Amino acid sequence: MSDAAATGLLDRAIRRITTAWRDMAASVAGEQDESLEAQMHACLNGRGGEVSARNRAAKLADTYQSLDDAGRRQFLQTLASFDSDPDAVADAYTAVQKAVDPAERATAKAALRRALEPPRLKLLMQFTTLPEGPKFLVDLRGFLLKTRHQDKLLAALEADLRGLLAAWFDIGFLELARIDWSSPAALLEKLVQYEAVHEIRSWRDMKNRLDSDRRCYAFFHPRMPGEPLIFVEVALVKGLAGSVQNLLDEKAPVQDPRKADTAIFYSISNCQQGLSGISFGNFLIKRVVELLTTEFRNLRTFATLSPLPGFRKWLDETLAANPPGLLSDEEATSLISAMPAPTGARALAGILAKRGWWREVGLHKTAEPVLVRLAARYLLVESAGHNPKRARDPVAHFHLSNGARIERLTMLGDVSEKGAKESATLMVNYLYDPAKIEDWHEDYAGEGKRNASTAVRKLARGWG
Amino acid sequence: MSDAAATGLLDRAIRRITTAWRDMAASVAGEQDESLEAQMHACLNGRGGEVSARNRAAKLADTYQSLDDAGRRQFLQTLASFDSDPDAVADAYTAVQKAVDPAERATAKAALRRALEPPRLKLLMQFTTLPEGPKFLVDLRGFLLKTRHQDKLLAALEADLRGLLAAWFDIGFLELARIDWSSPAALLEKLVQYEAVHEIRSWRDMKNRLDSDRRCYAFFHPRMPGEPLIFVEVALVKGLAGSVQNLLDEKAPVQDPRKADTAIFYSISNCQQGLSGISFGNFLIKRVVELLTTEFRNLRTFATLSPLPGFRKWLDETLAANPPGLLSDEEATSLISAMPAPTGARALAGILAKRGWWREVGLHKTAEPVLVRLAARYLLVESAGHNPKRARDPVAHFHLSNGARIERLTMLGDVSEKGAKESATLMVNYLYDPAKIEDWHEDYAGEGKRNASTAVRKLARGWG
Amino acid sequence: MSDAAATGLLDRAIRRITTAWRDMAASVAGEQDESLEAQMHACLNGRGGEVSARNRAAKLADTYQSLDDAGRRQFLQTLASFDSDPDAVADAYTAVQKAVDPAERATAKAALRRALEPPRLKLLMQFTTLPEGPKFLVDLRGFLLKTRHQDKLLAALEADLRGLLAAWFDIGFLELARIDWSSPAALLEKLVQYEAVHEIRSWRDMKNRLDSDRRCYAFFHPRMPGEPLIFVEVALVKGLAGSVQNLLDEKAPVQDPRKADTAIFYSISNCQQGLSGISFGNFLIKRVVELLTTEFRNLRTFATLSPLPGFRKWLDETLAANPPGLLSDEEATSLISAMPAPTGARALAGILAKRGWWREVGLHKTAEPVLVRLAARYLLVESAGHNPKRARDPVAHFHLSNGARIERLTMLGDVSEKGAKESATLMVNYLYDPAKIEDWHEDYAGEGKRNASTAVRKLARGWG
Amino acid sequence: MSDAAATGLLDRAIRRITTAWRDMAASVAGEQDESLEAQMHACLNGRGGEVSARNRAAKLADTYQSLDDAGRRQFLQTLASFDSDPDAVADAYTAVQKAVDPAERATAKAALRRALEPPRLKLLMQFTTLPEGPKFLVDLRGFLLKTRHQDKLLAALEADLRGLLAAWFDIGFLELARIDWSSPAALLEKLVQYEAVHEIRSWRDMKNRLDSDRRCYAFFHPRMPGEPLIFVEVALVKGLAGSVQNLLDEKAPVQDPRKADTAIFYSISNCQQGLSGISFGNFLIKRVVELLTTEFRNLRTFATLSPLPGFRKWLDETLAANPPGLLSDEEATSLISAMPAPTGARALAGILAKRGWWREVGLHKTAEPVLVRLAARYLLVESAGHNPKRARDPVAHFHLSNGARIERLTMLGDVSEKGAKESATLMVNYLYDPAKIEDWHEDYAGEGKRNASTAVRKLARGWG
Repeated sequence: MSDAAATGLLDRAIRRITTAWRDMAASVAGEQDESLEAQMHACLNGRGGEVSARNRAAKLADTYQSLDDAGRRQFLQTLASFDSDPDAVADAYTAVQKAVDPAERATAKAALRRALEPPRLKLLMQFTTLPEGPKFLVDLRGFLLKTRHQDKLLAALEADLRGLLAAWFDIGFLELARIDWSSPAALLEKLVQYEAVHEIRSWRDMKNRLDSDRRCYAFFHPRMPGEPLIFVEVALVKGLAGSVQNLLDEKAPVQDPRKADTAIFYSISNCQQGLSGISFGNFLIKRVVELLTTEFRNLRTFATLSPLPGFRKWLDETLAANPPGLLSDEEATSLISAMPAPTGARALAGILAKRGWWREVGLHKTAEPVLVRLAARYLLVESAGHNPKRARDPVAHFHLSNGARIERLTMLGDVSEKGAKESATLMVNYLYDPAKIEDWHEDYAGEGKRNASTAVRKLARGWG
Repeated sequence: MSDAAATGLLDRAIRRITTAWRDMAASVAGEQDESLEAQMHACLNGRGGEVSARNRAAKLADTYQSLDDAGRRQFLQTLASFDSDPDAVADAYTAVQKAVDPAERATAKAALRRALEPPRLKLLMQFTTLPEGPKFLVDLRGFLLKTRHQDKLLAALEADLRGLLAAWFDIGFLELARIDWSSPAALLEKLVQYEAVHEIRSWRDMKNRLDSDRRCYAFFHPRMPGEPLIFVEVALVKGLAGSVQNLLDEKAPVQDPRKADTAIFYSISNCQQGLSGISFGNFLIKRVVELLTTEFRNLRTFATLSPLPGFRKWLDETLAANPPGLLSDEEATSLISAMPAPTGARALAGILAKRGWWREVGLHKTAEPVLVRLAARYLLVESAGHNPKRARDPVAHFHLSNGARIERLTMLGDVSEKGAKESATLMVNYLYDPAKIEDWHEDYAGEGKRNASTAVRKLARGWG
Repeated sequence: MSDAAATGLLDRAIRRITTAWRDMAASVAGEQDESLEAQMHACLNGRGGEVSARNRAAKLADTYQSLDDAGRRQFLQTLASFDSDPDAVADAYTAVQKAVDPAERATAKAALRRALEPPRLKLLMQFTTLPEGPKFLVDLRGFLLKTRHQDKLLAALEADLRGLLAAWFDIGFLELARIDWSSPAALLEKLVQYEAVHEIRSWRDMKNRLDSDRRCYAFFHPRMPGEPLIFVEVALVKGLAGSVQNLLDEKAPVQDPRKADTAIFYSISNCQQGLSGISFGNFLIKRVVELLTTEFRNLRTFATLSPLPGFRKWLDETLAANPPGLLSDEEATSLISAMPAPTGARALAGILAKRGWWREVGLHKTAEPVLVRLAARYLLVESAGHNPKRARDPVAHFHLSNGARIERLTMLGDVSEKGAKESATLMVNYLYDPAKIEDWHEDYAGEGKRNASTAVRKLARGWG
Repeated sequence: MSDAAATGLLDRAIRRITTAWRDMAASVAGEQDESLEAQMHACLNGRGGEVSARNRAAKLADTYQSLDDAGRRQFLQTLASFDSDPDAVADAYTAVQKAVDPAERATAKAALRRALEPPRLKLLMQFTTLPEGPKFLVDLRGFLLKTRHQDKLLAALEADLRGLLAAWFDIGFLELARIDWSSPAALLEKLVQYEAVHEIRSWRDMKNRLDSDRRCYAFFHPRMPGEPLIFVEVALVKGLAGSVQNLLDEKAPVQDPRKADTAIFYSISNCQQGLSGISFGNFLIKRVVELLTTEFRNLRTFATLSPLPGFRKWLDETLAANPPGLLSDEEATSLISAMPAPTGARALAGILAKRGWWREVGLHKTAEPVLVRLAARYLLVESAGHNPKRARDPVAHFHLSNGARIERLTMLGDVSEKGAKESATLMVNYLYDPAKIEDWHEDYAGEGKRNASTAVRKLARGWG
């Protein structure tokens, strides 16, 4: 038997025994009626060795799992109240101030850091050793993220947990694995569930996305086997693909991937809400670029095919406000001739309001040049909130931060209802050029400069 | 191809590419001549994304590896000097004091913790993402442990690193694996190198220790594959084994392990000096007890066969001091008759000083009752330093802390030169009783009470 | 990398190279235009080493694959014509007759066997070394089985191939593997395709059949990885299950398998038509019984839930013939009262002819006692062709041959259209009693005795 | 758990149960006292199903294992006496003669083949399904090969078994795996045991042969896991290596394999005596050439470094016979001046008879040109027995058959005692040129033409 198999056996045995001991310990100790707070105290200061500690943590976790949302909130408030001791902190700070040489100061500061470490954090760390502990904590943070706005203490707990998970889910721990039609059905079922960009409609659709001219990669954590953290779907094609429906067409013939010159990243989905803000996407794209480069020597271009999820919202607001210079006279005339209205802006709003407008050639042909121009503007100029260095579109922000540039806009790139509703059917390609990634990243991260192809830049220029 | 295999492939590809990029980055940047301090600054504050950061960390690690001990010490002193900013700490502390409600206080304290986090720690954390990063840091701490006494700043760095490694080598991450004759030769070679209790003399000796009536288990970390952290060797026998030479006899016939009633843990070795103080032994023994229980239903007794590594040192000192009541009159008479000397203590010292005394029946028979009695006393009564709750013998302290009791002492249990020199040929069995482990642990950890069998307790009582 | 993974890599490399060499060899040799017969000759007698031979075999296989059914028949007729040399056979036979002692005779007979070995068989054996060779030969026999009735030479070829495959698919080579929801999607897709008893309607249905209270096992051949040969689906339940719709109900709650006392084998499907007549089902059931026994200690009963696929056909013929004594007077009266008709037989035929009769309580309640009695008769008494020792029902023959007995009949056990059409909604449980399997097998294989429970035997007795 | 691990578990469970059933069956049946012949009869014609048959076969195998050599011989003679029925053969032959059309004839001949199949062969085939069956049969043939010369019936049995094993160990079944220092110690121990060319002296020597500039590959059979069939050791070097001691020097620095231009196959060992005559070496070398080609792009030359195991024997005989023209006058003069003797032949014989002659520069320098010339002659001209097409040297015959040519001879290539005794310290490189393998194979297999480099051909020409 291989080591891995042997380890699997051992792990199963351990879990079985752990469960048995836990049950036994629970029944013997008769601790069920203890208050939550008392249980947490016992976890932190209890007698007995690690096995007892683990049993107590397991029991607390079970308790949490059995609660409804209100109960969980209360549980977490109790937990959050286990803060560090102010007097101990004050004493430790005094020691820091009194330290006379760098070494003494270093020791005193380490002591201060220890004094500041809140007991709630130690308690959270005890959960990590439970067999399902990591997933438990990830889901617990998922819950905290939804409720932290109601309670600042929960926000503090969430921040502690975020730090803990950021260390645990350090990129150095993650394993990149390819997913294909030979992967476990249980894993593919999870992809269906987690796919956030273009819904997987059926197993046939799934299989099509895992064909020989496709690739799918995911990051996994060794303590959460079978549970993807993030995954990306890639199509190997000739030339820059602009339409996602073409890519997902189950009847399209399978291409020879060795002849492809372009890799299109057409879907990237984070799988664990509880890991939100702990970023893997950047690494995932770069590693996949590297892998594809070694596997397929003909690949020259690496690009995404992405939605503009905030475009319609911005556009609707802008058309309603109709600032001067929004549309040129020719644009307005053209739009009004296709959809009679007092102004070009109203005409465009009218087109977009019409059910299935993108299926009427007359309408979408008229709207196309205006929409593409405004989309370029939206991506390149519009900003998030009051920060002019941050692109308003979240997907644009993600890829620009990663070192991509805006390459091309395609009308009718996503003609699904969702695509029309969010992106006015537009799709955008972000280009990842391995030789430029670092510079472009620095441009955006440093000065807020958004790189784009000449064509897109020209479009964006044509404003008012 | 299995997922695991695919992952292996990916990892190899990634490493190859990482190396290439690193080389390239290094040559382009021409950073070789930078001072160490400048390099460290760049690591912490440098422009570019994660790939650049990783390249810089890799370069620093390479630099460290290429240095001699003096150079490494200097490297580490430079690194240790990257401490947190006193003003930022002071400001953060002020904010803590000004906080008016628990939530605000929690947030302020989190900020203070962040302000206190020394940059040297962030820099160390960058190494964890390198392919060989974890092993690099473990070995780096190994070096720090040897040199920290010379420099308090290095001691502070060592403390930071200890905290980092304690989190990384959390028991929840470790994988328990059985090692046998089908294990990779490269792994068995490491056991030979790491065995700290009873030297493995040859591959034949190794094979004998992995026979069907033996078990060997180790903990591994997923980021240090093939590198054991700690391992234990177990013999499955009938009755409590007292002699390690019998256990290691390559010519002894292999027993049927299903008929064994006793599991003897005859060797536990920590493998990584850099993880010293981060304890796994406790978990290892308990998990192995659980595993053996499920595999062999006839096992009733779990015990170690352990040396008394500090016994001879204590005994030599005690015999030299010869406190009143050390030996009874009968004991003195008996010893002097075997080895003429002015006092019983001198006689015993004389016996022990004689080369190969344990091979002379007359000598060891005479010495046995006295040695066994004094050994019981040494284990049960003598204390480490000024702490009366801590057993003087380090192995006794380890097993008592884990919840074992002192079960039996055996003369001529280890007749190797080392066994005679350190333990006066005595071996001791520590008993692990699954039903009592928690209580016994608590007895020792709480009150310093050292549990022992009635027989051993009686022996220890016969003092003065 | 594990050995297995390394092997996988090697194999892939080998295939890639083999393909390249093959292409090259083909283009250099310009053999494409050769007649099939010449190609086969070259395969058998060609110059060059094994690599050439393998290339030629690969080319022949490609040729075969590219042909339509008529072309394939012609290909196979050409192949079948490569028979042994009559003169060589005659000479070898003479040598056998002249042999004077047993040893000489043994040698001469071995020579005769070699002389008799038809060249077509040697040619078939060359295909086995191709990467996909085994599957190719299995499918080739599948085709032969469909066409052999038209041509005695093809029948001879099929017989040769059957012998070859029987040796290759020796039970000693087969690997038993459990299939569950963690199995590759590509494998589960094959189960959907191969399921021959109760159609798998969706991935949800598939998942339900692989739940924790179910088991699925298959035999695999090392040279046909990912390609099941036969598989069985098992439900772990309390008491003998009689209704397949209950078992397949996706909404039924999952049971705790450790509490089950009965394992129901509710579907066994052969996957490879080309292995028809090479039996694995017998071994599969026994091995699965053994495995379940070790995994679940509470299991007491092992039984199938099986259709009676030939029952309706026999029943319709029998009702039409209406032999004297077929139905008792009470039976006839009861049937006629529910479905007016001149005779009881016609009444029953009328009921069965009515669309959805089994959904009308009045009808099926009336028909039930008669149908169950006649089904018992059909299973226990009716024979296949002119062989009174062989049960007429093929499924009954399979399980009786394996050493099972007929345990129970259940009306409305399968209320699907297929179940009504073939089995009149009846299902039968065959009982596998590990302690009796050998005896019951011998009873049936030797004397043709069909064992059954007392209840079923009583039912069958009530005839005429 | 992976499928493979699950299968492992299943297999272990099956074996345990099989053993239990076997024991039970044996004790119930009380068959222990049966005569061997009766047991064999029962195996062939016994009642009960496959499980009974398997139990009987297992019992017979156990019986065989428990016997001494004489007992085994008797066992095998009894087994060999189970020959086909002469009357059945005669009848079947008559049917063949009476057949009127090809199809009828094919059927009749198939029946004759079946009639000729000796029962002893069927009995041997029953062993294949035992868990350790394949290894049992391989070892059984190993024994037969040693004793068949004494008994023609045993020779017939050996021939049957050879056919059976040739089918089972078809190259299509074999798995090529790389062996390195991460391979199981149990496997490496077997290499030590099986190495037939250059003894592995220690684990250090073993490790040296598995270093990063070495490769080792073996064929395995899926039914004999962990048991290599044949393995080859390869060194990756610059230029054609001539000295095996240099290759095996444990202190030589490890080279960068990516810079190597030459792969030297310096040891090929068959592991299973019972598979003698069933050739894998040919395939092994070619596959390894292909693998190395894909892994290392700089490799240009593939060659062996081989002994001339029959050279000294031939040389000693030739020198004793001293045929006219054996040595030129200059050669004779030179030899006599170094070792006074009546003739050059006697002088050379004298040199070779001197202990450690190859360590004396004067002697080996004088002998070198003559030895190299005669060795070239021995390899290129001398023949085995009366077959002028077959090289006298068995290693030369093996490599020439595989399509290699004789490339270079090196004096002092193997200065071990064995090398001096068998090959007069000479080593030869056989060159495998992928582009020529087929032609050179055909040259030798067809016309007996032995290809060699120009230099070696010139040497061989200088005869008499």
